[in-house]
Amino acid sequence: MQIAMIEDKIVPTAELEPAYLDRGTYFGDGVYEVLRSYDGKIFAIEEHLRRFDNSLAAVKITGVDIDQVRSRVRKAFSTAGIANAKIYFHITRGSAPRDHICDEDLRPNFFLTVTELPDDSEAKNKGIAVSAHPDWRWKRCDIKSLNLLPNVLARLDAAKKGCAEAIFVDEAGFITEGAASAFFALFERKLTTAPLTANILPSITRKFVIGAAKNIGLEVIEKSFTPQQAGCADELFIAVTTKDIVPVVKFDDKPVGDGKPGKYTKLLAEEFRVSMSTRGV
Amino acid sequence: MQIAMIEDKIVPTAELEPAYLDRGTYFGDGVYEVLRSYDGKIFAIEEHLRRFDNSLAAVKITGVDIDQVRSRVRKAFSTAGIANAKIYFHITRGSAPRDHICDEDLRPNFFLTVTELPDDSEAKNKGIAVSAHPDWRWKRCDIKSLNLLPNVLARLDAAKKGCAEAIFVDEAGFITEGAASAFFALFERKLTTAPLTANILPSITRKFVIGAAKNIGLEVIEKSFTPQQAGCADELFIAVTTKDIVPVVKFDDKPVGDGKPGKYTKLLAEEFRVSMSTRGV
Repeated sequence: MQIAMIEDKIVPTAELEPAYLDRGTYFGDGVYEVLRSYDGKIFAIEEHLRRFDNSLAAVKITGVDIDQVRSRVRKAFSTAGIANAKIYFHITRGSAPRDHICDEDLRPNFFLTVTELPDDSEAKNKGIAVSAHPDWRWKRCDIKSLNLLPNVLARLDAAKKGCAEAIFVDEAGFITEGAASAFFALFERKLTTAPLTANILPSITRKFVIGAAKNIGLEVIEKSFTPQQAGCADELFIAVTTKDIVPVVKFDDKPVGDGKPGKYTKLLAEEFRVSMSTRGV
Repeated sequence: MQIAMIEDKIVPTAELEPAYLDRGTYFGDGVYEVLRSYDGKIFAIEEHLRRFDNSLAAVKITGVDIDQVRSRVRKAFSTAGIANAKIYFHITRGSAPRDHICDEDLRPNFFLTVTELPDDSEAKNKGIAVSAHPDWRWKRCDIKSLNLLPNVLARLDAAKKGCAEAIFVDEAGFITEGAASAFFALFERKLTTAPLTANILPSITRKFVIGAAKNIGLEVIEKSFTPQQAGCADELFIAVTTKDIVPVVKFDDKPVGDGKPGKYTKLLAEEFRVSMSTRGV
């Protein structure tokens, strides 16, 4: 015997849409991916599907057929007919009355959206401001899970300060990554970013940025640095699937370098576009 | 221009139920409470509403009228007509296309269920087994948020080991609390539990247990202890709204004391029932 209530309306549980009993809502018990397309071609789909498969395994959601996920992504993308699209999808452990423990044979829920990517040329040309925020996230940020409240709180805080992104700082005082991006600094032509640990999402864009940096002859150093060190960097930028490389021109209200997008950041963004254009499938 | 896909079905976003665009699912961007009733009376409703209000403020969800929440809880409870009920409710920041940042005037979503509490006399009479698990949660466990994947993973791990609850151990090696309960030990008539910090949920049952302990003349010490120390305790128990006090008779496969529910745990459970029966409203 159970009833539910949505706003002021009493509803018998049996009549509820499965979405209201989704473990994604009750617990954030699911994992997700965000893909993008360039000019009608989805970028790095296999890398994203591989990471998604790893996330599923890490949270022990079983019975998902990655080939089926790939077909759904392709079908939705071709139905939408958007050349430069953002494709978001998640799988949750399924729908059931709220209980941490659930049947092992619960059917996972799949949900996907395709959206047109907004024009972000202004951010890319002028650069963005970012602000530091304590890294309150859980200890398995290598899993791309739906537990994103710390990211939301950090980005809401950043937005209030007029910043486009929040940069997480851990308890030891080191930058981990952006709330929705990887974070990079250039110190004397050395491209520097935090090494991949359980506190860092293995960003696919990060991987391609590192490849592009090597292509243009930059040394790449995977090493953590502090907000103070970031404040003294020659150049800073964030990298994220939906925006590629975006220069950071202000860190915690202090201009980065001469306050304009950096030279190597621009070179990297160009190289990234070239290498990516050969990879769409 | 946007489309969505649920399993294999393409759906225009405009036709989606708001539940599919709930920030609760995308980000766990919401907070919740669990209440119970004894014999037709809701227990400690004001304490729960106060904590809920604190959780809302901590995650900056605004525009929620706590009086309206109270009325909804009462209305649903009386409609359900269940004497010993579990009342779960959450509020999320609202429904919108997925973006960490959202309009400040987004309307929060309210959802509630009333369920009959199962008979838990066996667990109370015989006690339960628990197992330790690394505390992977975020750094604001004082907020009762929907980011509960670490709790789910810990409890699934415990269940696999035949345990009814997982006990979190932080990086320094100290027990924080149960994945869905407060955790207590008795060392030579001293009731011991971790102090309230940002890593601990301010459990309402914990508060009433501490009151009951003082009533029966036990000294109460708020101090962290390790799994090793727990293994040597005279008695262990968990406390949670839906079950009150449940004796722990096995910790990581090792019997606690003589392997039976402890004397003071039983006395406390009785005292708790007495003090609680005068508080239902």
